[in-house]
Amino acid sequence: MGNTFGQLLRITTFGESHGPGIGVVIDGCPPRLPITAEEIQFELDRRRPGQSDISTPRKEADHVEILSGVYEGKTLGTPIALLVRNLDHRPQAYDEMREKFRPSHADFCYQTKYGIRNPEGGGRSSARETIGRVAAGAIAVKILRLAANVEIRAFVQSIQEITAKETSDFPSLSSIEANPVRCPDPIAAQQMTERIKSVRAQGDSVGGVIKCRIRNLPAGLGEPVFDRLEADLAKAMLSLPATKGFEIGSGFEGTLLTGTAHNDALEMRNGAVHTKTNHSGGIQGGISNGEEIYFRIAFKPTATVMRPQPTVDIHGNNTEIIGKGRHDPCVLPRAVPIVEAMAALVLLDHWMRDHAQNHAFEF
Amino acid sequence: MGNTFGQLLRITTFGESHGPGIGVVIDGCPPRLPITAEEIQFELDRRRPGQSDISTPRKEADHVEILSGVYEGKTLGTPIALLVRNLDHRPQAYDEMREKFRPSHADFCYQTKYGIRNPEGGGRSSARETIGRVAAGAIAVKILRLAANVEIRAFVQSIQEITAKETSDFPSLSSIEANPVRCPDPIAAQQMTERIKSVRAQGDSVGGVIKCRIRNLPAGLGEPVFDRLEADLAKAMLSLPATKGFEIGSGFEGTLLTGTAHNDALEMRNGAVHTKTNHSGGIQGGISNGEEIYFRIAFKPTATVMRPQPTVDIHGNNTEIIGKGRHDPCVLPRAVPIVEAMAALVLLDHWMRDHAQNHAFEF
Amino acid sequence: MGNTFGQLLRITTFGESHGPGIGVVIDGCPPRLPITAEEIQFELDRRRPGQSDISTPRKEADHVEILSGVYEGKTLGTPIALLVRNLDHRPQAYDEMREKFRPSHADFCYQTKYGIRNPEGGGRSSARETIGRVAAGAIAVKILRLAANVEIRAFVQSIQEITAKETSDFPSLSSIEANPVRCPDPIAAQQMTERIKSVRAQGDSVGGVIKCRIRNLPAGLGEPVFDRLEADLAKAMLSLPATKGFEIGSGFEGTLLTGTAHNDALEMRNGAVHTKTNHSGGIQGGISNGEEIYFRIAFKPTATVMRPQPTVDIHGNNTEIIGKGRHDPCVLPRAVPIVEAMAALVLLDHWMRDHAQNHAFEF
Amino acid sequence: MGNTFGQLLRITTFGESHGPGIGVVIDGCPPRLPITAEEIQFELDRRRPGQSDISTPRKEADHVEILSGVYEGKTLGTPIALLVRNLDHRPQAYDEMREKFRPSHADFCYQTKYGIRNPEGGGRSSARETIGRVAAGAIAVKILRLAANVEIRAFVQSIQEITAKETSDFPSLSSIEANPVRCPDPIAAQQMTERIKSVRAQGDSVGGVIKCRIRNLPAGLGEPVFDRLEADLAKAMLSLPATKGFEIGSGFEGTLLTGTAHNDALEMRNGAVHTKTNHSGGIQGGISNGEEIYFRIAFKPTATVMRPQPTVDIHGNNTEIIGKGRHDPCVLPRAVPIVEAMAALVLLDHWMRDHAQNHAFEF
Repeated sequence: MGNTFGQLLRITTFGESHGPGIGVVIDGCPPRLPITAEEIQFELDRRRPGQSDISTPRKEADHVEILSGVYEGKTLGTPIALLVRNLDHRPQAYDEMREKFRPSHADFCYQTKYGIRNPEGGGRSSARETIGRVAAGAIAVKILRLAANVEIRAFVQSIQEITAKETSDFPSLSSIEANPVRCPDPIAAQQMTERIKSVRAQGDSVGGVIKCRIRNLPAGLGEPVFDRLEADLAKAMLSLPATKGFEIGSGFEGTLLTGTAHNDALEMRNGAVHTKTNHSGGIQGGISNGEEIYFRIAFKPTATVMRPQPTVDIHGNNTEIIGKGRHDPCVLPRAVPIVEAMAALVLLDHWMRDHAQNHAFEF
Repeated sequence: MGNTFGQLLRITTFGESHGPGIGVVIDGCPPRLPITAEEIQFELDRRRPGQSDISTPRKEADHVEILSGVYEGKTLGTPIALLVRNLDHRPQAYDEMREKFRPSHADFCYQTKYGIRNPEGGGRSSARETIGRVAAGAIAVKILRLAANVEIRAFVQSIQEITAKETSDFPSLSSIEANPVRCPDPIAAQQMTERIKSVRAQGDSVGGVIKCRIRNLPAGLGEPVFDRLEADLAKAMLSLPATKGFEIGSGFEGTLLTGTAHNDALEMRNGAVHTKTNHSGGIQGGISNGEEIYFRIAFKPTATVMRPQPTVDIHGNNTEIIGKGRHDPCVLPRAVPIVEAMAALVLLDHWMRDHAQNHAFEF
Repeated sequence: MGNTFGQLLRITTFGESHGPGIGVVIDGCPPRLPITAEEIQFELDRRRPGQSDISTPRKEADHVEILSGVYEGKTLGTPIALLVRNLDHRPQAYDEMREKFRPSHADFCYQTKYGIRNPEGGGRSSARETIGRVAAGAIAVKILRLAANVEIRAFVQSIQEITAKETSDFPSLSSIEANPVRCPDPIAAQQMTERIKSVRAQGDSVGGVIKCRIRNLPAGLGEPVFDRLEADLAKAMLSLPATKGFEIGSGFEGTLLTGTAHNDALEMRNGAVHTKTNHSGGIQGGISNGEEIYFRIAFKPTATVMRPQPTVDIHGNNTEIIGKGRHDPCVLPRAVPIVEAMAALVLLDHWMRDHAQNHAFEF
Repeated sequence: MGNTFGQLLRITTFGESHGPGIGVVIDGCPPRLPITAEEIQFELDRRRPGQSDISTPRKEADHVEILSGVYEGKTLGTPIALLVRNLDHRPQAYDEMREKFRPSHADFCYQTKYGIRNPEGGGRSSARETIGRVAAGAIAVKILRLAANVEIRAFVQSIQEITAKETSDFPSLSSIEANPVRCPDPIAAQQMTERIKSVRAQGDSVGGVIKCRIRNLPAGLGEPVFDRLEADLAKAMLSLPATKGFEIGSGFEGTLLTGTAHNDALEMRNGAVHTKTNHSGGIQGGISNGEEIYFRIAFKPTATVMRPQPTVDIHGNNTEIIGKGRHDPCVLPRAVPIVEAMAALVLLDHWMRDHAQNHAFEF
C-alpha cells in the first residue's frame, strides 16, 4: 500500500533498485496534450546517476519507454505507463546487506514490517523509486506551464552551513543548471562543491536544504480542511527519501514575530488584490492567494558512509558494517528535479479538484 | 472536497464557526470499544475556549453528543457521528467582515475559490473546525493506549524565543496541564504566560513551536513510498490552522551534521534491536522502528490583532480593518490537544493498514 | 468502513434505526447553489414511513435539519451536514431480536462480523439509513436539473408478476405520484396495490422490479475501465437494501439476440450522432452516449413477515421467530425516490470527474 | 481516471490494444507469498486469443513479465508490476476505424469524451485491457485458496437460449476446461459450440450468461452500507466489457416469490449456523454469511459482426461499416477466467478490509 499519490491526477510507482525495472502509471492525465519521450527524458537526465563528479558513479542511462496512453504524440486520457529498465546490476555487491542492517537505512524497518526484503541496493526503499515521480512530474510541469505559465523552480539553498545568497528575482533554470550542485549562487555553489568533495574524500556525507519557488499559480487552489495546499505539499516532500523537515513561508523563524509584524497586509495593485509582504508563502487557509509560493525542505546527510559503523545482523548479533556500492555523498543536487516533480503533481491535482467542484457548474 | 482524513479510520468533519453546529463522522472505528461521551468531552475541554486567562473569552461549553455508532457504551463498528452545537453566536459582530478581507486570514482565498463565504467568525476556516478532530482523536488515543500503551504527548516548546528546557524523561500529562500555556517546564511556562499577556495588552499576538513525543509505538507502521509515516504526520500537522512548518527527528538542524555524526547506529539492547541515538525520530524509510517518535510544528502568531491594518474590501478598494470578536492572542496552548488528536488518527490508521496487508495472511 | 460513496461528490451516511439520529455529510457540493431545507424535505417525504395505506405505520416526520454548508440560502462549497432525529423509538419491541437472528436479515452477519450489534429495528442495517442518501440525492437532482435539465425518473415496473405497460413516453412525476405504489400505469398500479394489501393480510410480503429512466444526460460521462458509468450505477443500486439484481439496456434478455439484432446502428439526426435503437441503454464502453439511460433493479420480498419462521438464537439453539414491529409489506414504493437519489449521486460525481480531466485544460 | 480497482488490494491497469504493452500494478499484496510467472501465465493462457476454434485467431502469446514486487520467488509487499507486450500489431487493418464509429462499440463515446482516441483495435476500450485483471486475479485466487481453501468457479451457463443443466455439486475446473466453451454440462457445451460456429459462419455473434459460484468463503466479509459485498461484485462485473446485467442469489426471479417462500430460514448444522435454503446467494446485509455465493452476469453478443451496418463517420456523414480484424463471435468462453479474477480481487480486498477493522484490536 501507499504507492499511489494524488486524487485526480493519480500516480502509482513500482520497482526495486535492482529488479527488472522502475516505473510509474499516471491516471487522469488530460487528453490531447502533446508529449514526447524526449521531454520526459530531459527531466530524468537531471536526476540520473553519474551526471557529474559529485554524484554516484552508478551507470544508468535511465532510458524511459512510454508503454501506453500516448498515441501519435498526444495523450489519450488513458493511463500513461512509463518504464525504465535497471541495467547496472551488481547483485554480488549486496551479499553483506542480506545479513546486516545498514544504520539509518530502511533495512530493519522493511524486514520488521514485511518479514522479507530485497537487500540489493535497498530494494524498494532506494531513491531509484523517484524515477517514476520525475517522469510523471515532467508531464505535470508541462501542463502547468501551458495552462498558465506556472513556473516551479527548486534549487539547493544550503549544504551544511554554506548558504546561498537570497535574491528576490525568480532564479532561472540556467543559473541552477550552471553548476553540478544546482545552486543559483555561483560563489556558494563553488563552496558547496568543494565541501561535498571533501567529505566524500573522508568517506563521509552531508545534507542541506532545498528551496522551491513557484510563480504564476492562480489563486483558489487547495482544498480545506485536510487537503490544504501546504499540507499536500508537506506530505509530498516528506514522502521523499532523506527528508526531515518542511516549512512554508515564514516557517519556524516566523514563530519569533508578533502578529502585526507577520501579517501580510492586503492592497490593490494593478487592479488586483495582492499582499504587501509574503510571510504566508502564497497560501492562506490552505488555498493559494496568487502570490509566489515558496517552501524549504531539509535533507539529512546520506546514510551510506564509507566508514565502519556499529550495527546488528539479522540473527540479532552486534556487528559492524562499512558502506559499499556507489552512492551520492550528498543527495541534494539530484533531488532538485524530484522536488519540482512532486510540487507539480500536487499543484496539477489541486487544479483539477478545484475545477471539478468550482467550475463544472454555474449557478 | 478535502474534508475527509485517513484511509481506513476515516474522519469527515463539518461545520462553520457560527452555523448550527460542528461535528465529525468517524468511519472504520473498531467495534466493541468501550467509550463514553465523557471521555470525548475530556479532550474537548482541553481545547475549548475560555478555559484560562490567556485564551479567548468566547463562551462555548462545546458539549458533545454521540449521534450514532455507540450502543450500550460500546462502539458498533458503524459510523460514529459526534455533534457540538454552536451557542455563543454574535452575527452582528461580523458585519465589517462581510465587506473587508482580514489580512493573513482565509477570507480572500475562500471568496476567490468559492465565490461565496460565510464571514461569521471565519466560517469554515475557523479553528472551531478542529473540534471534530479532537473528538475523533479522543477515540483514537484510547484505542492506541489499550492496544499497546502508546502514549502521545504534545506540549508548547517555545513561544517566540522563550524555549522550554529539554528533558529526556517523557513528560507527564499533569506537568503539561499544570499551567495554562501547556509547557512542562514551569519556569519557561511562567515567562510564556507573561509574554502572551503582555502582547495581548498591546493588541498583538504571538506564535511558537509545539513538540510532540510518542512512545511505545511498535515498529512496522508506515506505508512506503508516498504514505510514509512522517509524510502523513506532516500532512496532518500542516492541515492545522496557523501551522507553517514541520520537522521530524533532527529536522533542519540535522542538515548541519555529517552522515557519520547523524546516523543512528544499531545495537542489541534487552534482546531487541535498538538505535544508540535517535536522529531519525523513530522512523526510517517511512516505517516506525520502535524508538520514540518526536516532531515539532511551527505555529505563526494569531492573524487577528486588535490594531488597524491595511486591507482591501470586496469592491476592490484599499481600506483598514481592526480585529473584533474574541480571539486567542496565542493559539498554541489550545492547539496541544489538537496535535495529539491528529497524531493519534495518523497512527491508528497506519496500524490498521499495516494489519490489513501484513497480518491478514500467513504464508 | 464502507459508509462513504462517490469520488468527488462524496457522501457519508451515519445513524442507526433507533439511535439518536440519521444523517449524511456531503463533501464536494458545488458552491452558490440555492437550496432550502424544504426542497430536501420534499424528497424525504416521498420515502418516509406512514405516507400511505400500503406502507409501514411507523410514525416518523423525518424532519431534516441543515447543520452546515449552507449560508443565507446558498451552498458554501463546504461540507453539508444533514440530520434527521429518530423519534418513534420503541426499544422494548426489540427484546426478542437481541436473542434471535431474523431470517434473511443482516442480524447474524453483523454479529459475526463485528461481534456486537444494535438489535433495535435492525440498527445500522435498517433501511432508515437511506434517509441520508435521499437527502443528499435531492441536492444532486437539483444540480443536474439546473445544469442540463437532466431528468431522472424511477417507478415500480412490476410487483411479483404484475407488470406495468411499457410506454416510450418519458413518464411524468405526477403519473408516478398519482398512486401509492408509484407505478405510472394506473391499471397495473391498482392491481399491485391490491396484491400488496392481500399479502399483508396474510402476514406475508412481496418484491418486484423498479425501472429508472434518465434523459438529457450529455454524452461523455463515465470513467473507463473500472468506473464505467453502468458499473457505478450497478454498485449504487446493489448497495440498496433488499436488491438482488441490476440490468442496463437490453440486460439479460439481450443475451438471446445475435449481434446484428442487438447492435445500435448510428445515424445523423437533427445534426447530431444518435443511435437508431437503444439496446445499450445509453452507455457504451462505460461512457454515456447521449441517448436515454435506463436500467432495472430487482428487489426481493421484505424479509420481515408476520408468520413464525425457523431460526437460531445467539446461544446456538434452534428456535422460531415471528415478525414484530412496523414494516412495509413491499419496499418498492418507498424505494423509488431512493433509486433516483442514488442515480443522481452517481451522475453528478461522474460529471465532476469528467470535468476535472477533460475540461480543466485546453491543448 | 477510473483505472484503479480496490481499496486495500489495489490494481491499476494500463495499455491499449495495439500499443507497446498491456499491464497492471498491484499494490497492497501481502508479503511472503510464493508466486511464479508460470502461475500467472496459467490464467492468462485461459483468456488468451487463439486458444480454440471458437475464439479469435489473433495470435498473441500474452507472455507475462514480472517487473517488480517479487524477489527470489516471493512477494515483497511492494507493488507488483506485470507486463504483457502486444506483438500481433496490424495497424493498417484499422484505417477505416479512424474515420468511422463502429456501432455498439465505444468509439463515438471515447471520441466525444476525450476529443481523441486510439482507433487500433479499440485502443483502451479493447478487451485486451482485461489481461491485467486476469494476471492480478491469479495472485488473489492463490491467496484465497491458501488462506481458507476458497474456491471460485465461473462457467458459461447459457449461450442465447441454450442453457446448461444446473447441478448442486460444485463444478470442477476440469469439467469446465473440458470443452472450448467452458460449460460444465457437456451436452449443452456441444450445442453451444455448434451455435457459436453457426453464427460465426453467418458473420454474426452471440451472447449469454456466465454463472460464478464461490465456496468456503468465511462469514463476515463485506462493508455496509455502500461497499456491500454484492455491490462491489456488481461493480466488478459490470466493469467488464460487454456486460449488461448482474444478479445475485434469487435475482430477478426472486421478485416473483413471497417473503415466506424467499426467506432463508436459519438452523444449526454441524454445530454452526447455516441457512436451510440460499436465495440470498450467501450474502445478507452486504456481508457474507458463510454459505455458497453465486451470481450471474449477462454478456451481450459481440458488437463486431462481419456484416455491413449503418453508422456515422467522424465528419458527421451517414455511412456503412463492416467488421474487420480478428474477433470472437462470442466473448463468454474467454470471459470465464476474467470473471473469476474480478471475483477474487473483490473478495481479497474485503478480506483485508475486514481484517483491518475487526481483527487489528481486541477489546
